[in-house]
Amino acid sequence: MADACIAGIGQTEFSKNSGRSELTLACEAIQSALDDAGLAPSDVDGMTTFTIDNNEDVDLVRSLGIENLRFSSRVPHGGGGSTGTLAHAMAAVESGLANVVVAWRAMNERSEARFGTAHMTANSNVRGAGTGFIEWSVPFGAVTPATWTGIQAQRYMARYGVTNEDLADVSVALRAAAASNPRAWFYGKPITKADHQESRWIVEPVFRLLDCCQESDGAVAFVVTTAERARDLKQIPARILHATQSVPFETEVVTNFYHQDLTSFESGKKSAAELYDRTGLGPEDFQVAMLYDHFTIAVYWHLEAFGFCGLGEAADFVREGNIGPNGKIPLSPNGGLIGEAYIHGMNNITEAVRQIRGTAANPVDAVQNVLVSSGMSAAVLSR
Amino acid sequence: MADACIAGIGQTEFSKNSGRSELTLACEAIQSALDDAGLAPSDVDGMTTFTIDNNEDVDLVRSLGIENLRFSSRVPHGGGGSTGTLAHAMAAVESGLANVVVAWRAMNERSEARFGTAHMTANSNVRGAGTGFIEWSVPFGAVTPATWTGIQAQRYMARYGVTNEDLADVSVALRAAAASNPRAWFYGKPITKADHQESRWIVEPVFRLLDCCQESDGAVAFVVTTAERARDLKQIPARILHATQSVPFETEVVTNFYHQDLTSFESGKKSAAELYDRTGLGPEDFQVAMLYDHFTIAVYWHLEAFGFCGLGEAADFVREGNIGPNGKIPLSPNGGLIGEAYIHGMNNITEAVRQIRGTAANPVDAVQNVLVSSGMSAAVLSR
Repeated sequence: MADACIAGIGQTEFSKNSGRSELTLACEAIQSALDDAGLAPSDVDGMTTFTIDNNEDVDLVRSLGIENLRFSSRVPHGGGGSTGTLAHAMAAVESGLANVVVAWRAMNERSEARFGTAHMTANSNVRGAGTGFIEWSVPFGAVTPATWTGIQAQRYMARYGVTNEDLADVSVALRAAAASNPRAWFYGKPITKADHQESRWIVEPVFRLLDCCQESDGAVAFVVTTAERARDLKQIPARILHATQSVPFETEVVTNFYHQDLTSFESGKKSAAELYDRTGLGPEDFQVAMLYDHFTIAVYWHLEAFGFCGLGEAADFVREGNIGPNGKIPLSPNGGLIGEAYIHGMNNITEAVRQIRGTAANPVDAVQNVLVSSGMSAAVLSR
Repeated sequence: MADACIAGIGQTEFSKNSGRSELTLACEAIQSALDDAGLAPSDVDGMTTFTIDNNEDVDLVRSLGIENLRFSSRVPHGGGGSTGTLAHAMAAVESGLANVVVAWRAMNERSEARFGTAHMTANSNVRGAGTGFIEWSVPFGAVTPATWTGIQAQRYMARYGVTNEDLADVSVALRAAAASNPRAWFYGKPITKADHQESRWIVEPVFRLLDCCQESDGAVAFVVTTAERARDLKQIPARILHATQSVPFETEVVTNFYHQDLTSFESGKKSAAELYDRTGLGPEDFQVAMLYDHFTIAVYWHLEAFGFCGLGEAADFVREGNIGPNGKIPLSPNGGLIGEAYIHGMNNITEAVRQIRGTAANPVDAVQNVLVSSGMSAAVLSR
């Protein structure tokens, strides 16, 4: 078995108006990841991205000067599937289908097609986006990810006595991290709990503006290859101990109202069971956790599903400082999708690599294992 | 390494008007493939299909009663990527991401969204379909796959002195095979060369109606698992010796006008080199070839790219009877996409399995190795 690892990472700047095409952004991020690894486009023989990325592999092959892809895949489930790109790349490399696989995500999500508005674009009908059920939500006024997620959030908050004020702790922690990360859009801009409570309601009484991730323009890419190949490259490899996707029975994508218990994060539980079984690790073995934070409450759901605390205990766990830099499980030291940028989860994967290399803006000490979870996919990266 | 194999195949009837949804068709084909293998939906932990399949994995998980997917992927490139589903499933199984992967394709391509008409549906903008370049073709009157492929065909025919009358040999051979295959839409309906020459022009002077594959409603599925798991199942497994995709520099999907030499089938050549290198086999080692026949001329291009004959020699090679049941390389004994049905290439994969099991309607003697190629992906299946 050729153990797969991440040998290179790259990105563009994160902004609100990139001023250039998503194709240009993708090429910049990929070239940057290859430079980081010490590889050339002609070394690339596999690519993977989201079903809803607007760039075609054929265009990237032409634009970058790739000679031939032997593997090309797309991961469904929007940002929930972001860590799935790691799983696909790992599978391609370990099965010998390809040797150097690039994963990318490029989007002008703020300046072109905003997810946070009720504007339904052509993307709404893209296969694999899991948006077929939008038709069942829109007639009832549930028209954005905030409303869809808000319905589940309200059930959780009612059951466990959680308030929007509790959620502020997550936002404040992530903005504190972003404040000292020069790559973050909110670099130098920490917030207080009062700032959070004064921000406007997006879905009352669940999410305020500062509970929501950013809308961002930018691109992120990473390079997966074998451990053997990585030994000759420029960087300390981040080993992929395991990666998995999870699509349990009755799960939906974002509009996830159909399973029995709306407070139970089924995909997270399945991912946790799979990763812990395959790696022999448990929650106590991670020094950093990169947990998908499209909305503050998603951090609670991940903390509980992966066993960092019990069901319904996440608000207390966070309030006690456990996700801070000196807490039990430091959360997204880049600032996450709320503080750094919303490149659909992919910037949390590159941050995991930086933590392992020791090159992050806010490095955690002695990082051995990082958990990355994006809802419907998750992975363990190790030094 | 857990050698992957196909342990089950399934399908619906092939028709021009299925009378039911594509979701129903997909479920029927998948359930049929699982029954064939002796597996239950609860055994399935991976799925893969085309980017442009209209069914979501979450809907199939719910409808079939799957408990949890650990792998879910989509293959770009339309029918050209059909054998890529085999590559993805193989990668998932051999890397240990999943143990039982179902590949499916379901479409009401005749009764709902016909590819052969100039009607541009929402699908035209689906990511991964490679159709971004349609915008450069449509303004010049190139509005269907027949016109796009016709442009390349005309260059090939001019260079090698091939006429539409030559192409009739391919069509007649495939319809002869379909005529004795009860699953084929054209069962009992062979054609003569004169029938071909009397059929109407679709793209003059290149393709007549009988040079074009069918437009079909239906679904096909197959199940990939490890050799170890397959030993306990119901069928003789078809081993996947290797599978690959191919996206060479300057290649496009269908509208493939940008590479240097329009008569050179770059994807096929790359696939052939990869498969022959990885398996140690050559053209003389196959007893059956399932070659993507969306248009008759594509068979020529495959025969040359995979080395069954030299460049420009395919018309003579076919005229001499080499693709018939007793020829050097029997072609698609199911009748292919022209004679059996156009389930976007997937029915050629299930036929390869039947040839290996010895259960095909038109069985070839002593089949050891079958080549399956669909343009931008290819595989070797073996007994």
